Amino acid sequence: MQGEHEVVVCRLEHRPGRDDRMTTHVGLTARALGADRLVLPDNAAQAEETVVDITARFGGPFDVECTEGTVGFVRNFEGTVVHLTMYGERVQDVEDDVRAAHADGPVLVVVGSEKVPFDVYEHADFNVGVTNQPHSEVAGLAVFLDRLFDGRELDREWADPEAVVLPQDTGKRVVDP
Amino acid sequence: MQGEHEVVVCRLEHRPGRDDRMTTHVGLTARALGADRLVLPDNAAQAEETVVDITARFGGPFDVECTEGTVGFVRNFEGTVVHLTMYGERVQDVEDDVRAAHADGPVLVVVGSEKVPFDVYEHADFNVGVTNQPHSEVAGLAVFLDRLFDGRELDREWADPEAVVLPQDTGKRVVDP
Repeated sequence: MQGEHEVVVCRLEHRPGRDDRMTTHVGLTARALGADRLVLPDNAAQAEETVVDITARFGGPFDVECTEGTVGFVRNFEGTVVHLTMYGERVQDVEDDVRAAHADGPVLVVVGSEKVPFDVYEHADFNVGVTNQPHSEVAGLAVFLDRLFDGRELDREWADPEAVVLPQDTGKRVVDP
Repeated sequence: MQGEHEVVVCRLEHRPGRDDRMTTHVGLTARALGADRLVLPDNAAQAEETVVDITARFGGPFDVECTEGTVGFVRNFEGTVVHLTMYGERVQDVEDDVRAAHADGPVLVVVGSEKVPFDVYEHADFNVGVTNQPHSEVAGLAVFLDRLFDGRELDREWADPEAVVLPQDTGKRVVDP
């Protein structure tokens, strides 16, 4: 978010077709919940396009890029690497340390896939489980970002939106600002 | 969760094929993040089966049922109805009221679909937006539950698991208790 060290979300792997919606939801969740940038494997161009479209419509800044080697990207990232995995340390036990790391510099949040290379576990500064139960990479990312930012992401402002949703107790209201 | 008023998650609609993974992730997120029960439309039997399998393997209690009419289920629910929608009131503004309602009785969390009948907006005690940005029903549900339970769900215990993941700073460890 503006005025803070960068938070990047990297989706490690993508299976075209099968993962299209999940990867898109990872991307939209990263944008909505305070990350600055999304890195996808280069076969995820369709998800990239959707996230770019939503950013054009609902505001930014939010950057999206595809890369040939996500594992290489993780390895070369200059900052703290957090790998979200159900096998990791409990988020409630490590979140203070991760927040302290983010106060000092950029954070990369790695969202896995069926088969995460052991390399990634070893390279990560934190392997973090949002519960040690099987559920959803989208849910894990969402809870992690909300805790990383301590809820500040809910108040973030969006530059240059074409559409703004005004909160309503009943019904829908979208305006063109 | 045990010792608290029931929290039920209802997925309003399901398109077989296209929504299989999303509905499954909604269900697994509900289970992992403290809900007691999942209600699905009756064409979502495949997702139901996956959630039942995961519960058998990793522990419960967690109930799953399919119903012919999810809108009817919402209308007849005896307790507080929360409908998650990007058009709703900001979660940070209403979460205290929802927590107070949950201290008094059961809560139903309705997770939408492309076309939510206006009825549901009107019937809901709270229409709640986890941001007013488009992202993911799974992400919205996850952040909402984490806030509803104030993080207590991360410490919930599981009855009769066949497999238990032990948190690790690197690698994976699963034991048969």
